[in-house]
Amino acid sequence: MSTTTTSAEQTAATRSSGAIVLGDNQWGKAEVRLVRVDRAAPRHEITDVNVSSQLRGGQEATHLEGDNSRCVATDTQKNTIYAFARDGVGAIEDFAIRLGRHFVEDFEWIEGGRWEIEQYSWNRIATADGEHDHAFVRNNQETRTTVVQRDGDEVFVVSGLTDLVVLKSTGSEFHGFPRDRYTTLVETNDRILATSVTSRWRYTTTDVDFDAVYAKVRAIQLEAFATTHSLALQQTLFAMGKAVLEAVPEIAEIKFSMPNKHHFLVDLAPFGLDNPNEVFYAADRPYGLIEATVQREGAPAEPRAWATVTGFC
Amino acid sequence: MSTTTTSAEQTAATRSSGAIVLGDNQWGKAEVRLVRVDRAAPRHEITDVNVSSQLRGGQEATHLEGDNSRCVATDTQKNTIYAFARDGVGAIEDFAIRLGRHFVEDFEWIEGGRWEIEQYSWNRIATADGEHDHAFVRNNQETRTTVVQRDGDEVFVVSGLTDLVVLKSTGSEFHGFPRDRYTTLVETNDRILATSVTSRWRYTTTDVDFDAVYAKVRAIQLEAFATTHSLALQQTLFAMGKAVLEAVPEIAEIKFSMPNKHHFLVDLAPFGLDNPNEVFYAADRPYGLIEATVQREGAPAEPRAWATVTGFC
Amino acid sequence: MSTTTTSAEQTAATRSSGAIVLGDNQWGKAEVRLVRVDRAAPRHEITDVNVSSQLRGGQEATHLEGDNSRCVATDTQKNTIYAFARDGVGAIEDFAIRLGRHFVEDFEWIEGGRWEIEQYSWNRIATADGEHDHAFVRNNQETRTTVVQRDGDEVFVVSGLTDLVVLKSTGSEFHGFPRDRYTTLVETNDRILATSVTSRWRYTTTDVDFDAVYAKVRAIQLEAFATTHSLALQQTLFAMGKAVLEAVPEIAEIKFSMPNKHHFLVDLAPFGLDNPNEVFYAADRPYGLIEATVQREGAPAEPRAWATVTGFC
Amino acid sequence: MSTTTTSAEQTAATRSSGAIVLGDNQWGKAEVRLVRVDRAAPRHEITDVNVSSQLRGGQEATHLEGDNSRCVATDTQKNTIYAFARDGVGAIEDFAIRLGRHFVEDFEWIEGGRWEIEQYSWNRIATADGEHDHAFVRNNQETRTTVVQRDGDEVFVVSGLTDLVVLKSTGSEFHGFPRDRYTTLVETNDRILATSVTSRWRYTTTDVDFDAVYAKVRAIQLEAFATTHSLALQQTLFAMGKAVLEAVPEIAEIKFSMPNKHHFLVDLAPFGLDNPNEVFYAADRPYGLIEATVQREGAPAEPRAWATVTGFC
Repeated sequence: MSTTTTSAEQTAATRSSGAIVLGDNQWGKAEVRLVRVDRAAPRHEITDVNVSSQLRGGQEATHLEGDNSRCVATDTQKNTIYAFARDGVGAIEDFAIRLGRHFVEDFEWIEGGRWEIEQYSWNRIATADGEHDHAFVRNNQETRTTVVQRDGDEVFVVSGLTDLVVLKSTGSEFHGFPRDRYTTLVETNDRILATSVTSRWRYTTTDVDFDAVYAKVRAIQLEAFATTHSLALQQTLFAMGKAVLEAVPEIAEIKFSMPNKHHFLVDLAPFGLDNPNEVFYAADRPYGLIEATVQREGAPAEPRAWATVTGFC
Repeated sequence: MSTTTTSAEQTAATRSSGAIVLGDNQWGKAEVRLVRVDRAAPRHEITDVNVSSQLRGGQEATHLEGDNSRCVATDTQKNTIYAFARDGVGAIEDFAIRLGRHFVEDFEWIEGGRWEIEQYSWNRIATADGEHDHAFVRNNQETRTTVVQRDGDEVFVVSGLTDLVVLKSTGSEFHGFPRDRYTTLVETNDRILATSVTSRWRYTTTDVDFDAVYAKVRAIQLEAFATTHSLALQQTLFAMGKAVLEAVPEIAEIKFSMPNKHHFLVDLAPFGLDNPNEVFYAADRPYGLIEATVQREGAPAEPRAWATVTGFC
Repeated sequence: MSTTTTSAEQTAATRSSGAIVLGDNQWGKAEVRLVRVDRAAPRHEITDVNVSSQLRGGQEATHLEGDNSRCVATDTQKNTIYAFARDGVGAIEDFAIRLGRHFVEDFEWIEGGRWEIEQYSWNRIATADGEHDHAFVRNNQETRTTVVQRDGDEVFVVSGLTDLVVLKSTGSEFHGFPRDRYTTLVETNDRILATSVTSRWRYTTTDVDFDAVYAKVRAIQLEAFATTHSLALQQTLFAMGKAVLEAVPEIAEIKFSMPNKHHFLVDLAPFGLDNPNEVFYAADRPYGLIEATVQREGAPAEPRAWATVTGFC
Repeated sequence: MSTTTTSAEQTAATRSSGAIVLGDNQWGKAEVRLVRVDRAAPRHEITDVNVSSQLRGGQEATHLEGDNSRCVATDTQKNTIYAFARDGVGAIEDFAIRLGRHFVEDFEWIEGGRWEIEQYSWNRIATADGEHDHAFVRNNQETRTTVVQRDGDEVFVVSGLTDLVVLKSTGSEFHGFPRDRYTTLVETNDRILATSVTSRWRYTTTDVDFDAVYAKVRAIQLEAFATTHSLALQQTLFAMGKAVLEAVPEIAEIKFSMPNKHHFLVDLAPFGLDNPNEVFYAADRPYGLIEATVQREGAPAEPRAWATVTGFC
C-alpha cells in the first residue's frame, strides 16, 4: 500500500477538507434471539423474536481515543433485552419502546437509538384432542417487523412485514408501455402475477393496539392483492397501500418493496404442444423490483423515521 | 504445481493401481422450477415444484473421449419435464415415475436414473367473499420431497418432508446420561424441545395414493411429536417413526434427521431476577443432531433406494 | 377482513388525512447477472457483475390507473444493460453513470434513478506454464459495490465493499466501559477482534479512476485494521475511515457497518486444562454491530446520495 | 388426524411387517465452531474449523424407552472437541481421527461414529512492512472438508473441497449429443464452461501428510480444469480425477459433483448489435449437474466410507 499522494491530489485535499471527524454513529447488539414462554396457564403462549438494539450519543472519545467510559457495552444491551423479557414481551413495538426509554433514562449521554425486532409466528399443533396446549409448529409465512427509533423524547415507530409471498394465476395484464430501441417485451392480457411483499408503515402515535393493527394491515394487504384486477404491479401496490391507509388512521404512510417474481410461459411448440397459460418457468434472477410510498396528502414527512430502514426508496 | 512424482510415490502407485476408470456416474438438469396452473375450472389449482432429473448409463465415451453420442443433453431433460407437465403433474411421486419410465424407454443405453422433486404448498387468500379462486399465499411451513430412482425395471420411491419446525414448551426431560471427564451438562426435568424435522420414508410399492399418504404421514409426525412426553429427542423420533409405520403399511422404513435446536434458559440472577423457565436464548450453532431409521423387523434392506439420498445415516 | 372503522377511528382519519397519494417511488430490474469476456487478446479478461436499474419519474398514472404509457418496462431496462455491455463495462461506477445518463436522455419524463452494481473478482488459475490465459478461479474475498443515483443533472456516486472478513488474534482490548445493573461483561486486555467489513464511500466527483481508487481504499482499510492497536472496534473503524479520507481527496465521507464477530474463550478448567487465549468458540448470533460515518469537518451533507443505501446509520 | 386403517391396509400391514425396530442411527453435536490461535511465536497461526461429531452404538434403550444411560450427551461431544483442541488441531483428518479413537475407547458400547470437519482458510494481511504477524483476511475461495468414519477398529477417511468456482472463457465445446423430440439445444464449438467444484476423495491409509496432499490435490484439479480442452463437462471432470489419482497413490477413488453453471450468450440482434461471444447472462437455475466417480480398476469398493457423504452418486 502506498500512502504517497501526488501533488494534484494534495491540492484537491487542501480544497475539500478540514479535520476528519466522526459523523452519525450507533452501536449495539444485533440479533438477540429471544423465546419467551408464558406458562401462567396450562395453555402456554410463546413469543419468538429477534431483537437488535443500537444506541446513539456521546461516542467521540470511543472512536477517536478508544476511551470507553461512555460506551455502553453491547453485551449490556443484550442483557437488558433478556432481563426486560422477564416481565413479558407483549407487542414488539411496545417492547422496543420500553427498551428505548430505559437506555435514554439510564445513561445521561445517550440521546437516542434504534431498536429493531423481527417476530416469527407459531401455530398450535392439531391433535386428535384438538389444538395442543404446549406443542407448536412454526408458521413461516411472513416475518413481522418493527424499527423503533428514539431521538431525545421523540419516538418513531415503523412496523412492517417481509417475505409474504403471493401469486395470482390470472387477473393480471401488462400492456401499453413505451417502446424504444431496447424494448422487446410482448404485451400480455393474462399473466401470472407473483411477488414477495415487504411493507413498512409509519405510525403517528404510540397509543396503538399494535397486535390488532398488525393483523388488520396484513389481512388488508392480502385482500387488496387478491381482489385488484392488475394492469401493473404498481397499480396493485398502490391499491394495497391505499386500503391500509383508509382503514387505519394511525398510519401516516406505507412503503412497499415488491419484486416482480417472473413466471414465464414455456414455449412447448417445438414439442408439438400448445400451452394455454398452464406451464410456467419460475425465474430467480433478474426480477422486476417495484417500490413506492403511499401517503396522505399534506401529511408532514418524517425522514428520521425512515433513515435507517433498509430497502425503500 | 508440480506433477513430478518421487520414486517412493511411484512405487506406491504401482502397488495400488491398475488403469484409472469411470465409476458410478449420473448427469442431468437440476432445479427445474415449474409452476403449473390448472385452469379447467374458475377455481384454479396451482402446482409449484422444483424438479431435478439425472440419467445413468452408457457414459464411458463421454467421460474418456468427449464423445457425446450417448450423452442426452441436460437441456433435453429440462425440456422433457416442461413438456410432460402439459398433461398435468399430479402427485410428485407419480410425475417422477413417469419421467423415469420415459427416459429408460426413449434411449436404449439409459439404464436408470434419479428424479428428485420438491413441492411448495400454497393457501388460498381469504377475502370478505371467502377463499379466492385464483389468488394464493405461499405456505412455507415445510417442503414435500421425493427421490425416485430407477435401475432397469426396478423403481425405488423415497418420499419425505423437510424444514418442519416444531417446539414443545414443556413435556421434555433429559437426564440419566453417562458422565465422563468431559461431561458438564446439567440434568433437567423440564426443557424446551425444538427441532426442524427432515424425514424420508421408503415405499414398498408405487400403487399408492401419494398425496393422501403424504398428508397422513405429516399429520402423524406432528401429533406424535406433540403427544410424546419426551425423555430424549431420540425417544420422540422413534415414536414419530413407529406411528407412521403402524398407520401406513406401504412404508417399509422411515429415516429422520432432527437437529436439537437448543433453547438455553437465560441466567437472570445477576440482575436480581428469577427465571422460572420463561426466558430463553435460542442458539444457532452448535446444535444436537439426532438421526435414526425406524423400520419393520426382518424387512429386506434396499440400499439402492437410499444411496444418493442426502443427510441420513 | 373487516373494513369497518369505529367512529373514533373515523375522527382520527379525518384529522390526519386528506387524499391518499403516491409518494417516492422507483421501478426497475434487479440483479441482472452479466458476465463479459474481453477476447481482444489471447489473454482474456472477464468482468462479472450483478446490475440493478431503477427509474424515477412520471409514474402517477401507472400506480393510480394502471396506465403504463410512461412505465418503461423493467424488461427494457434489462435489455439496455446487456446492450450497453457490448461496448465494454469498464469500472462499475462508469457503467452505472452511462446507464443513468441514457435513461434520463431517452425518456423525457424520467427524472432520475438508481443503478446498483456488485462486482465479483476472479483470479487466473496457476498452471505449470504460469497464469492461464482463459481459465479463472473465483475470488470470494469481498464484493465490490456501487450505488449511483441521478436526480436530474446531478449524479451521486457511493461505492463500497462488503463481506471483507478480517481477524486479529491479538492487539485488541476492551475495558473501561460503564457498568449498570445489567452489566456483567468482564474487561479484557487481549481478545480476538474479528469483523466482516461493509464500507461505503461517497465521491465528490465522477472524474475519478474508480478502479485504481477502489484498490487503494481496500488496501488502506486492510492495513489500518491490521496496524491499529484496538481499544474498541469503534476506534479501529475510525482509524480505517480516517486513513481513507487522508489518502483520497475525492472521497467526502465513508460509512462503515462492522459486526463484532465474537470469539469467546472456551473455559477448559472443568477438564483440568488451562486456556491461554488459544481455544475459542466463534459465535454466530448475537453479534455486536458498530456503525459510524467518518467525514471531513464542514463538508456539506448529501442525504440524497445515501437515502436508499441500506444498512447504515 | 385419523389413525383408522381400512381392512385392505390392515391386510397389507400384516403382510409386510413384524415388530417395528430401530435401524441405523447416530447422534452428536453438529457445527461446533472452533478457532484456535497458535501463539507460540509472534507470528501467530490460526485454525478455523467447523466440527461435527456423531456416535454410533448401543442406543436401543434411548430410542425405545428414553433410557439415556448409554446416550453420551451431545454436549459432552462438544466439550471433548474443545478440550482436544488445547493440544492443537493439526490437519483436520488427524483431528477427526483422534476424536474417533477417543470416543470408541472411552465408552465401551460405542462402536464407531462419524466426524465431519470443514476448514476455512485465512491469508495474512499485507502491510507496508510485509505480511502482518497477527492480522488476517479470510479467503473464501473454497472450503476444505473431511468425513472420517470409524466402525470398530476400521477408519475411513474421505476428504474433499467444496465451492471452488472456476470458469473458462473459451476452450469448451458441446456437440454430437443425441436428439429426440424434446431436443432443441443448439450445438456449439465455443462456450463458457463454469462450475463450482465439489470433490471428495477416499484415502486408503491414514499415514498421510494430509495438509500437503490437500494442497496438491487442489492444485491438480485447478490445473486440469484449466488445461483440458473440453468437449463435455464430463470429460473435464474425468481428466481432473485421473490427474489426481495418477499423482497421489494414497487416494483410491475421487468423486465429483459439478454443476454446469450456464452462461447464455445474449441475443443482441434486436438492438442492431452482434455478440461475438462477449456478453453473457449468468443463469442461476436450472443448472446442469454432472456427477461421477473416478477410480482405480479393480480396487475394492468401500461403501461404508461413502454411506453418509452427501451429494454424490
